[in-house]
Amino acid sequence: MPPLQQTRPDNIAGVKTSHSVVEAVPNVSEGCRSEVIDELAATIQTVSDVNLLDIHTDPTHNRSVFTLMGPPNAVKDALIALIGCSLERIDLRNHTGVHPRIGAVDVIPLVPVGTTAMAICVTLATELGHEVASRFGLPIYLYGEAARVPERRRLEQVRRGEFEGLPGKMREPAWNPDFGPSLPHPSGGATAIGARRVLIAFNINLNTGDLDIARRIAHVIRASSGGLPAVKAIGVPTARADVVQVSINLVDPKQTALHHVVETVAHEARRFGVSIQGSELIGLLPADSVLDAAAHALRLDRLTGVRVLESHLPR
Amino acid sequence: MPPLQQTRPDNIAGVKTSHSVVEAVPNVSEGCRSEVIDELAATIQTVSDVNLLDIHTDPTHNRSVFTLMGPPNAVKDALIALIGCSLERIDLRNHTGVHPRIGAVDVIPLVPVGTTAMAICVTLATELGHEVASRFGLPIYLYGEAARVPERRRLEQVRRGEFEGLPGKMREPAWNPDFGPSLPHPSGGATAIGARRVLIAFNINLNTGDLDIARRIAHVIRASSGGLPAVKAIGVPTARADVVQVSINLVDPKQTALHHVVETVAHEARRFGVSIQGSELIGLLPADSVLDAAAHALRLDRLTGVRVLESHLPR
Repeated sequence: MPPLQQTRPDNIAGVKTSHSVVEAVPNVSEGCRSEVIDELAATIQTVSDVNLLDIHTDPTHNRSVFTLMGPPNAVKDALIALIGCSLERIDLRNHTGVHPRIGAVDVIPLVPVGTTAMAICVTLATELGHEVASRFGLPIYLYGEAARVPERRRLEQVRRGEFEGLPGKMREPAWNPDFGPSLPHPSGGATAIGARRVLIAFNINLNTGDLDIARRIAHVIRASSGGLPAVKAIGVPTARADVVQVSINLVDPKQTALHHVVETVAHEARRFGVSIQGSELIGLLPADSVLDAAAHALRLDRLTGVRVLESHLPR
Repeated sequence: MPPLQQTRPDNIAGVKTSHSVVEAVPNVSEGCRSEVIDELAATIQTVSDVNLLDIHTDPTHNRSVFTLMGPPNAVKDALIALIGCSLERIDLRNHTGVHPRIGAVDVIPLVPVGTTAMAICVTLATELGHEVASRFGLPIYLYGEAARVPERRRLEQVRRGEFEGLPGKMREPAWNPDFGPSLPHPSGGATAIGARRVLIAFNINLNTGDLDIARRIAHVIRASSGGLPAVKAIGVPTARADVVQVSINLVDPKQTALHHVVETVAHEARRFGVSIQGSELIGLLPADSVLDAAAHALRLDRLTGVRVLESHLPR
């Protein structure tokens, strides 16, 4: 990666951002046309200082998740370019997919990494929302830590009704956007931009075509129905008729270990007489989750980063 | 750690060693007297530029394994100091323990890390052996990649007969040491110094007091009896009467994954009606072994370092 240490000191709204590093995880509603996905990736990569670290494309979700990282202003430039390109190339009026979405760029979470303060990401979300709303005529909802009203903290609430329900929803004063017009963008809908802590997006595929089993396991493990703390989960179909998926967001890996989520799904699956076919990680994983999962597999009480040989090497 | 990047260019026997990093894993025959172990650790730490990363002490083995890392010349200085202190404080004539050993400092493996060449460690082993033999009157056997005769490549051969058998063994011309006198050091025996690739030292404890089960599982998994490639294993007792141990060296984690060794021991243990009580890692683990074990636990096809969030942060 480029030497982030050499990033010149910078300021956003008075918050000192020198050495700040932000991860952005834009979710774009295109998971089929590879030429469009390539074009979106190339757009992100035109901004120097920004690293595109991962692209997860799912044709059944009809959605791609880009993971990029860099100093706040560089990340902002890359996201403005990505939104512009997405609005040109994606028309939600012709979009179907199993994952809920409200816009061509459905959601952009901004995550402080390392010693970066959450305030940096809240400010960045606000500035980015203001900028793209005026530039593209796109309604913007601020969510998560960037939400200005409690009803918008939870992304599920912002997304409720999806693209198709936006015209009706936006007529309610409660759903006047934070920035931009009070009508959906005709082809691009609306976009949720927010700030949040690191989250693990993780899908577990089951060796069965029975969607009801995925939904029942999702129900068992999700926190909102008394399951595992910090777990959000839904059951969805996949491209394969004989495989269904439990699609998971682990919003706080300190509350529930990721490997424990996997073990619990494996256990519940067995009760239905099915097994795990495999898993998918979307984006990145915190080092602690990797170390904890390895310790679990190796039957070690604990495993810390100092026990990893390469952690002591000069880079 | 100190800034290894700033290590001044250096030379050992004409091999350029600037930026070279060596891991040394001296095994010392003291696992009970904590004041002696503390003194040995302090001795290592008197050498700047060397990092003492781990100490694994086992009273039943009556042995401590130190893991240190640094530029070759600094590591050499630390090891000379460690050997000197060990010869002063440890008398093998009064030593018992379940792990085989030939000396107060039983063995010193030197491991090239990062882009460091194996030749650096071979040269370091030779220079260190020559130096400590003349300074302390200690017989030195060069083993592994540093061996000068094929019979000394395998550490087990060098160690056969242990401290107690040294006087007889050393009378054979084949066992004349590479450096030092042809008689054991009276209290310190002899020391094997070698160069090798990264190796994982890993103990798996079983919920049974039956040593025969540990020995039979060790037999099943070790490569030399047709088990798992690159696995060496012995069955040993532990400090607890109801726990026995399979003590493992995985000499090439690319040939057999560490988590696969653990799974195999778990499977074999079940056949004997016992279970794994826990594991112990001695020293460090290569990052790939951590990632592979985590992928296994999480049911991911693969997991690479670029998917780890913190790998993208400036240090």
